Amino acid sequence: VWSGDDAAVVRVPLSSGSSPGQAPLLLLAADTVVAGVDADLSLTTLADFGWKAMAVNLSDIAAMGGRPDHALVSVVGLGPDELEDLYEGIVEAAAEFGCDVVGGDLSAGSEVVVSVAVTGWVDGEPVLRSGARPGDRIWVTGPLGAAAAGLRLLRQAGPVPHAWGQADQALVSAHARPRPAVAEGVIARLAGATAMIDVSDGLAADLDQLARRSGVGFELANVPVADGAAIDEALAGGDDYVLVFTTPGPVDVVRPFLAAGLPAPNMIGECVADPRLRRVAGKTLTVAGWEHSL
Amino acid sequence: VWSGDDAAVVRVPLSSGSSPGQAPLLLLAADTVVAGVDADLSLTTLADFGWKAMAVNLSDIAAMGGRPDHALVSVVGLGPDELEDLYEGIVEAAAEFGCDVVGGDLSAGSEVVVSVAVTGWVDGEPVLRSGARPGDRIWVTGPLGAAAAGLRLLRQAGPVPHAWGQADQALVSAHARPRPAVAEGVIARLAGATAMIDVSDGLAADLDQLARRSGVGFELANVPVADGAAIDEALAGGDDYVLVFTTPGPVDVVRPFLAAGLPAPNMIGECVADPRLRRVAGKTLTVAGWEHSL
Repeated sequence: VWSGDDAAVVRVPLSSGSSPGQAPLLLLAADTVVAGVDADLSLTTLADFGWKAMAVNLSDIAAMGGRPDHALVSVVGLGPDELEDLYEGIVEAAAEFGCDVVGGDLSAGSEVVVSVAVTGWVDGEPVLRSGARPGDRIWVTGPLGAAAAGLRLLRQAGPVPHAWGQADQALVSAHARPRPAVAEGVIARLAGATAMIDVSDGLAADLDQLARRSGVGFELANVPVADGAAIDEALAGGDDYVLVFTTPGPVDVVRPFLAAGLPAPNMIGECVADPRLRRVAGKTLTVAGWEHSL
Repeated sequence: VWSGDDAAVVRVPLSSGSSPGQAPLLLLAADTVVAGVDADLSLTTLADFGWKAMAVNLSDIAAMGGRPDHALVSVVGLGPDELEDLYEGIVEAAAEFGCDVVGGDLSAGSEVVVSVAVTGWVDGEPVLRSGARPGDRIWVTGPLGAAAAGLRLLRQAGPVPHAWGQADQALVSAHARPRPAVAEGVIARLAGATAMIDVSDGLAADLDQLARRSGVGFELANVPVADGAAIDEALAGGDDYVLVFTTPGPVDVVRPFLAAGLPAPNMIGECVADPRLRRVAGKTLTVAGWEHSL
């Protein structure tokens, strides 16, 4: 019943006589953010919270190689003024990534909960988590750890508004306004990605998911760490919303990214046949990060 | 941005050369239920709560004349055992009305919140709230007030399990397990309904919405009251999830309902040109019910 992937894939029921290729596949995803659980509203704003609620959903569509289309937003526990602040971030993210908010619901409640459901479309086959094969190369669409480092900086600075230097501001923004890799997901699919997932729980945990679903292990070497972030934050930090994807060895993925005006993805390692193997720079990686961090 | 109707209507982006008629229109709706706000979990079960979360969403698709297809369910604030109870009702409602649950999300939280998003399809034109014209007849798909009467009985009986007589059980079930009028909505659309809405907030409030969006008033005469319910419960009780719809005078709607094996709908009145007029049995109706009840 549950799709178990980033988004469910649905065929459009065409009238008889139509060929299935005439309609794209419909993608459906839903993610909920809870204040105090998914964001600390003493460190970031309600507008940031609204942005994040949209971003995590858009990222689910991106991770299938789809383009987001519409969103439904249900909000619990906010008064009119707070709602306006929240919507500011929702609408900004929606506009930035071409996803119209077309409905939703408002409810009373004692806790702030924002549930978003998104639709997307994919022409051709979506990229699932399960398609990686031994020998496939593993790529990420950008450096990791920025969101976790930004959260660390915000916690150190405390709730007082703070003037950040440029490098720290980039980390704080990565936490407060994560950017779903929508264009990158489409290009990765077109370039021949065999499996893909977005980094929401951390590279180690999300790559573990992809490996489990694909029945492969992996060996990583060159994980790109965001400037100012620690390697632990890059491996286990989460909330980066870059995409990890795999491709068969000979496939050139750098060129299509550059041709689309996107930064070249980073090759970080390879899938291996032993489904239990999870290694980075020769050390065992657990879903919580490095071996030593347990 | 917001649809303002029961569900948003989305066109499938077909490949060039396809005619728009080859794909149905996609309907999107989302509704959230909050424990303690939308249901009193000391009076009904978590399975009932799950059923209701699905039912209110399926009813949104029904009110457009569509058929539900898929649902995404996001749950906040439940542990594993409670989740199982909740899903029992979700899955029962999903199965009963042909809607597959294909994804969703689980989050920690201090309050029980269930957000459902549903998709549906409609061949041809969906029935909006805005299409009623003066002279159109107003119909309901069944008697009203049962859910409110059932809630009254449950409150009187208190949290102790109670052996209900058959008539009271029907009222209690109408509250605990409301049935979205999915088949009725499709038949009403095929029979030529000009406007439609589901009765979630109460006949008076929901018909007020339909009248506002259509720019008409209304005059009601024969509102069918469920056995054991009071007229106030029928007018203002809410949560009945019967459909109210309008048709041009000469249209025969009884026959198509009977032909589909459904009970004949009840004609309850007529739309009038004066958009301020809201009358039942000669008395002014407010969104809260009868004049006297203010």
